[in-house]
Formats: sequence, C-alpha cells, structure tokens
Amino acid sequence: MKFSESRLRVRYAETDQMGIVYHANYYVWFEVARADLLRSLGMTYKDMEQQGIIMPVIETRCRYKLPAMYDDALTIRAAVKELSYAKMAFSYTVVRDTDGSVLAEGETYHAFTNNNKKPLSLKKAMPSLYELFQGCIMEA
Amino acid sequence: MKFSESRLRVRYAETDQMGIVYHANYYVWFEVARADLLRSLGMTYKDMEQQGIIMPVIETRCRYKLPAMYDDALTIRAAVKELSYAKMAFSYTVVRDTDGSVLAEGETYHAFTNNNKKPLSLKKAMPSLYELFQGCIMEA
Amino acid sequence: MKFSESRLRVRYAETDQMGIVYHANYYVWFEVARADLLRSLGMTYKDMEQQGIIMPVIETRCRYKLPAMYDDALTIRAAVKELSYAKMAFSYTVVRDTDGSVLAEGETYHAFTNNNKKPLSLKKAMPSLYELFQGCIMEA
Amino acid sequence: MKFSESRLRVRYAETDQMGIVYHANYYVWFEVARADLLRSLGMTYKDMEQQGIIMPVIETRCRYKLPAMYDDALTIRAAVKELSYAKMAFSYTVVRDTDGSVLAEGETYHAFTNNNKKPLSLKKAMPSLYELFQGCIMEA
Repeated sequence: MKFSESRLRVRYAETDQMGIVYHANYYVWFEVARADLLRSLGMTYKDMEQQGIIMPVIETRCRYKLPAMYDDALTIRAAVKELSYAKMAFSYTVVRDTDGSVLAEGETYHAFTNNNKKPLSLKKAMPSLYELFQGCIMEA
Repeated sequence: MKFSESRLRVRYAETDQMGIVYHANYYVWFEVARADLLRSLGMTYKDMEQQGIIMPVIETRCRYKLPAMYDDALTIRAAVKELSYAKMAFSYTVVRDTDGSVLAEGETYHAFTNNNKKPLSLKKAMPSLYELFQGCIMEA
Repeated sequence: MKFSESRLRVRYAETDQMGIVYHANYYVWFEVARADLLRSLGMTYKDMEQQGIIMPVIETRCRYKLPAMYDDALTIRAAVKELSYAKMAFSYTVVRDTDGSVLAEGETYHAFTNNNKKPLSLKKAMPSLYELFQGCIMEA
Repeated sequence: MKFSESRLRVRYAETDQMGIVYHANYYVWFEVARADLLRSLGMTYKDMEQQGIIMPVIETRCRYKLPAMYDDALTIRAAVKELSYAKMAFSYTVVRDTDGSVLAEGETYHAFTNNNKKPLSLKKAMPSLYELFQGCIMEA
C-alpha cells in the first residue's frame, strides 16, 4: 500500500460566488483523505486520539491547477511524504473522476503530541504505526 | 439591556455559487451574536464553559427573507426569547446596514449541561446569570 | 421511491471544541441528502440550475437529539414533505449507523426561481420533475 | 501604507474537537485581511469583481506556531509580497492581541483573470490599482 484513495462529491456549501470550490475547503478534503489513509493501515485517527496521540497541523500548502465545481466526483489520493520520530508530512492529489485531471496538489505537516500538547515520539508511543507509515513513504 | 447588536461583514467563504450567503452560515452569525449578548451582560461563553456550564444546541430555526451578499455590512440583533431552569432560547434578527432591511430571523434553543453532558439547572449553577437572562426576555 | 439515503462520515472539520459536530453543519448534510434525493429521481440539482431553475432556501429547522461525533458513519434520509407550484419542503433524518439512533431531524423550505431570482412555477417549468416530487411526498 | 490590520474574534464554529481553531479556517481570516488591505487602498474586492477583475487563488501556505483558541481576539496583518502583471502574492501574520504572540504566518498567490477565467494583465486592466499594490510591497 503506497497511497490511499478517497472518493467524494463536491458540496454546494463548498462553492463560493466565483462558481468554484472555495480554496480553504481543499484542506478539509485532505483531512478526509488522511483519515482514510490511516484507516487503510488498520488504524483510525479517532483511535489514535483516544490512545493519547494527537497530530496537530503545523504547516499546510496547496497548489490549485484547475477549479473543482459543484457536484464534481473527485478522488483524493494521500501518501506519506516524510516521517521522523517527532513529525510527519502527507502529500495529496485531487483528481477529477470524469477525465482524470489533477485539480490540486498539496501537503500537510503534523507534529506528534500527547493530550496535553507535549511533543512525543511516535516510534516510542506506537512503534507498529510508525513502521506502517515508513512502509508508505512515496519515493519521488 | 433588552438585546445586543453585533456588527460583521460577509466573508467570501460564506457565499456559494448562487452568489449569496449559504444558508447554514447564518447560524454561525447567530453564535457570534449570542456570544456578544453574553458579553454585554458581563459574562463570556468561554468563561461559562470553563466554569462547567455548557449550552448545547437542541433546536435551530431560520427564515430567510432577502439574501445577504458578499461584503455586506450586517448587524445581528440577539435577545433572550425563553428561559427556564433547564433550557433557554435566543432570537435573532439579521439586518443589512445600508438600508435597514431585515434579511433573516431565527431562533436557537439550548439546554444547560455540565462538562459530562448531564443536565443542570442554571438557576442553581449560576443564579446571577439566570437573573440577568431573565431581565433580557423580550416581550412579544 | 419515498425517500433517499445518503451515507457520510463525520469530518474533523465539522466538530467543535464541545467534542461534537457543530450544529450548523447538519444543514450541509441536509444539502447532500437533498441532492441525492434528486439524483435518485434521475435529476441533479446541478442540471436544474443549468436549466435555469434555482431553489433558494427560505426556511430551515433542525432538532438535535443526540450528538454526532467525529468519524461517525451516518445515514441521512431525505423525503419530500410539501410541494406546491411555487415552493417545496424536504424533511430529513440523521441516523447513526452503528445502532440506528436518530441523532437529528429537520426540514428545509425552498422557493422556485429563475436565474434572476424571479419566482417561477415548477409545474410549468419542469412538469416531469414536479410529478416525480409529487410521487415522493411522505404521508405523516 | 505598507500593511493592513484586521481585527477579529475566534468563532466557536471555527474550533474543532482538539479545542483549537481548525487549520483550514486561517485561510478564511487571510481572505478577510486581504479584503481589508484592498479597502485600505480605497478599493474593494467586490468592486474589482464587478469591474470584471477576478483574483482566483493559485497557491496557499500557512505555518502554525501557536494555536488560536475560542474567543481569542486576533489581529491579522496583510501585506503585498509579490506583484507582476499576471499575478500577485499576499503575506499574512496572525497575532494574538493579549500578548502579541505570532500564532501563524502564511501566503496566498493569485492570478488575475476576467469573468470568463481568462488571464489578464492588472497593469492594463486597472493601472491605478497596480501602482497602489506596488507601493505596498514589503521589503524582506
């Protein structure tokens, strides 16, 4: 498993008066895709939080190539881009299903912390998940 | 003090491809107005939560008369509509500043609970706030 | 066909610091369910808009019974509640998949207008869709 | 005038179950700040759109340093970072009012297009605005 794929359909609420999807909403799709990537590894982010491992976002980036429109069927691909004991990065590609066009590409960077927002080492806190993430890193 | 007034400006993010504000966003403005009503009473909802009094929403209603548009300057009026030991209701009016038109009217209903989502009596938990709310009830 | 069912999973973005889904987001799910109801009738709201039939929201209501939580798998049921030449209403039920609990119930009311926000008669503008809607009205 | 300042207060809707502001919402604040920067130059983005100059977002970036919390009073500073005939970039700083802490920094990149999404030169389409933007460019 090198990446996950999440399918979603653009909501009216996600559009703006330009007639396209408002740019901030792509980050919500990235979140959906990240959760599905975890799920495909046999873990859920919900479980991680309940076990006291939080992944606050420390950086986000997105490049918009073609606009997503209301009711578009999209696939969001997510992969692990970087991994260390203290943090990790995911990369995402937003693809339009009808023609395979890449609409956007982005990355999110996350720290690993406990419930009190103190940094922790994922390798120590959850070695099996750390291994799984390592197996997912995309080669450029 | 019978009602509070909150001034805000419509964000691009709040519009949709119909070229008007997406209907769900009015409820976010109601939340802003509700917080300002509390603030005008010398209390903040943040403090209430920190003192263990939560006000989960149990019902919402809104009637849309004229569309709010991007960059409109609006005033949201909030008042206390109903109050009992266990719950309360606020009413809201969304007014367009340029001409005083009423764009929407709505209500939200809230229970009083503690941090564990157990019902509590506001009159017992915070009698002074209960009194203040009572003084704000709008006569129809 | 009396009602449609839409399946979705709660997004982290939809939660708030109370640890539950923020109340305004239920209306976005209603929108998803309404679009799926149309789709199940062989029509899409996107097509309706492109054919010059707009359905602006004129009233919304929701009653919240149990909180939806992050990552919950939900089914949103949508049905036609009322229909006239000039407007219509949909009703919705939010069900938690794990145990079938009803989390919320609500309604949205819509006018029929053309692209210039002038009222129109759906029966005249799109008689076949009007018939289909009529066949969907739920008996109480 | 080298930069603008926008004051806002964190909404409950903007928080998530981590108890902090959801990361995507910072981009909405950037939009508010960008609109205020334009306003401080004697122009509104609304007017620009009505005159047929659209500024679709082509890239966004944000680095999160400290979390914004519910009810925080914030100042968003916006400045022009880069400008060419075909596109421009804004930079933003999110500051917490109580102690002046920088919570986040980011950038957004925009193309200039007409109503039909065709590229245009801002210098040709609106030379006076182009000049004003040039006067705002921040030296690093």
